[in-house]
Amino acid sequence: MSQRFQSLEAYVPGEQPADMEYIKLNTNEAPYPPSPGVIAAINESEIRKLFLYPNPDGTRLINKLAEFYHVGADNVIIGNGSDELLAFAFLAFCDGGRGVCFPDITYGFYPVYAELYDVPYEQIPLMDDLSINLSDYCGVNKNIIIANPNAPTGIALPLGDIEAIIKSNPEFVVLVDEAYVDFGAESAIPLTRKYDNLLVMHTYSKARSMAGARLAYAIGPEPLIGDLRKMKYSFNPYNVNRLTQIAGEVALQENEYYVKMREKIVKTRESTVSRLSEMGFLMTHSCANFIFAKLPGVSGYELYSALKARGILVRHFSKPRIADYVRITIGTDEQMDRLCNEIALIRTR
Amino acid sequence: MSQRFQSLEAYVPGEQPADMEYIKLNTNEAPYPPSPGVIAAINESEIRKLFLYPNPDGTRLINKLAEFYHVGADNVIIGNGSDELLAFAFLAFCDGGRGVCFPDITYGFYPVYAELYDVPYEQIPLMDDLSINLSDYCGVNKNIIIANPNAPTGIALPLGDIEAIIKSNPEFVVLVDEAYVDFGAESAIPLTRKYDNLLVMHTYSKARSMAGARLAYAIGPEPLIGDLRKMKYSFNPYNVNRLTQIAGEVALQENEYYVKMREKIVKTRESTVSRLSEMGFLMTHSCANFIFAKLPGVSGYELYSALKARGILVRHFSKPRIADYVRITIGTDEQMDRLCNEIALIRTR
Repeated sequence: MSQRFQSLEAYVPGEQPADMEYIKLNTNEAPYPPSPGVIAAINESEIRKLFLYPNPDGTRLINKLAEFYHVGADNVIIGNGSDELLAFAFLAFCDGGRGVCFPDITYGFYPVYAELYDVPYEQIPLMDDLSINLSDYCGVNKNIIIANPNAPTGIALPLGDIEAIIKSNPEFVVLVDEAYVDFGAESAIPLTRKYDNLLVMHTYSKARSMAGARLAYAIGPEPLIGDLRKMKYSFNPYNVNRLTQIAGEVALQENEYYVKMREKIVKTRESTVSRLSEMGFLMTHSCANFIFAKLPGVSGYELYSALKARGILVRHFSKPRIADYVRITIGTDEQMDRLCNEIALIRTR
Repeated sequence: MSQRFQSLEAYVPGEQPADMEYIKLNTNEAPYPPSPGVIAAINESEIRKLFLYPNPDGTRLINKLAEFYHVGADNVIIGNGSDELLAFAFLAFCDGGRGVCFPDITYGFYPVYAELYDVPYEQIPLMDDLSINLSDYCGVNKNIIIANPNAPTGIALPLGDIEAIIKSNPEFVVLVDEAYVDFGAESAIPLTRKYDNLLVMHTYSKARSMAGARLAYAIGPEPLIGDLRKMKYSFNPYNVNRLTQIAGEVALQENEYYVKMREKIVKTRESTVSRLSEMGFLMTHSCANFIFAKLPGVSGYELYSALKARGILVRHFSKPRIADYVRITIGTDEQMDRLCNEIALIRTR
């Protein structure tokens, strides 16, 4: 391996143990299948055509996304999940002389990309309540990444704050990673028509029940999207599966299904928050499809381990500031009942 | 965009014009659908599970590939097509102080990766007959990439020559890109058990009729595969679609279908070679699912244009050394009949 990667620490995705059947509340997937039309669209006739490459531009899907968000086709790019598009953005917009900043507590992959591409980065501490201090991001003279809502806290930043950050850093790219936006935050996509330094990323993995299909998109002004496209065509032009492109189109047509699904998930989240609160948990205000919770006196690792022993996977973190917390994906009502019952048993043990 | 990419020239994949229905002989796909079991395996029950992430390790598929090739699971990694694995290899094994070499006429993506990751590279001229001069690759003190059979020439290098190159560059990685190996060359995979500097890449896009599903794999000694895995987990851990992993497994179980399919394609290739030869074409000796052909007095671009006007897409090249050639993918017998008939008309025009 090249010298420069000797100390690189890769990202560790949520575990997928195979020793028994777990209730998976550790990777923030939606607990419901894709919409009926998506399931119908991946049919034998399309599967037989798998011998053909996908359309590398993703033209049909991109046109549908552009229509859906009232932007031009030149303002959209699709990728093999957000992770790929994030990697393209690090490569395209950052370098040794043009660093990036993001919160100290956020998606754990951002520092990995910075290390991978040897980009100087600053991790700006969140405030004590784990929220973002707006003034920390104004006039920073660096590229900026904000996950909104943030992960693993679930806390959302108001759109006005996002706009202030964009305005105060006109020479740098502000990337808003909106993987969880549909569960309760306001999207910055309309602002992409107004500012030339804003890039917004969405994924089909959470609010569109397609984590297994690998699909994400970025929306922004044409020059930024053009730069990402150059990275894509210098890395992997055929990056999105044929069937996934079709599924992505149909999912947009069936938007109502997903709106209802998200309403259901949000309702389940709120009832889970109430029950955990009654059991003494402290939680951040989550606008996402997960909750970030701690039980005073019990470490995140202890709670994670006790739940795993009872067949439920949640995620814990080793960073000292959040070592007391677990991140719990919102599953079905039945799964959350089971979670709350197991937690009650753990507490009275 | 970062300064360093101002002059980067991205790869240009084969065109996919939508103005009419073309016979696509320009991107080297197999002309036949995946095997019946693959089509059956992508069923409603699996599609409904698309809300779940894929297994990031690809454990089941990797175990099947390891069994198929008589190597260990630690000797295999899967990727979102060869292009992604090639990018990981450039990133992992090359840097400013550790360059790479490959033929001047080969897969056009290799220099793009070198430019993308700022890796010094040498393009070693093929001999006049477009074959590789073995001694050019012995003791070169650089990483080496050999496409075998080479593209777009289709010419195969004997396994003994590959082994000589591996042996004479023990401190450097020799990457053998075997995208087309199943159409008539000998695979170097067995040598991966013997040499610690050999990495072999295969794709499902050509000989397994799954270009649309995006799947490739690399086989090599554990330290090299471990390095690629580190790149994958620092770039996109969930890089291979759920349904694609299942399809990849089933395709191995139905290997006989693909063996027969390739025999058919090779037979079609040989008959096409004969017919074009009778019409005055000169061709390299292709061991791939395409032929590389020139008609004296007609440029590659002219032939490409004339065929496109008649509804057939082939690929031409702008590099002076091969500007006289077109690369023609082997389609069905019917498609090749049509090709030969159209060429006959063009010639007598």
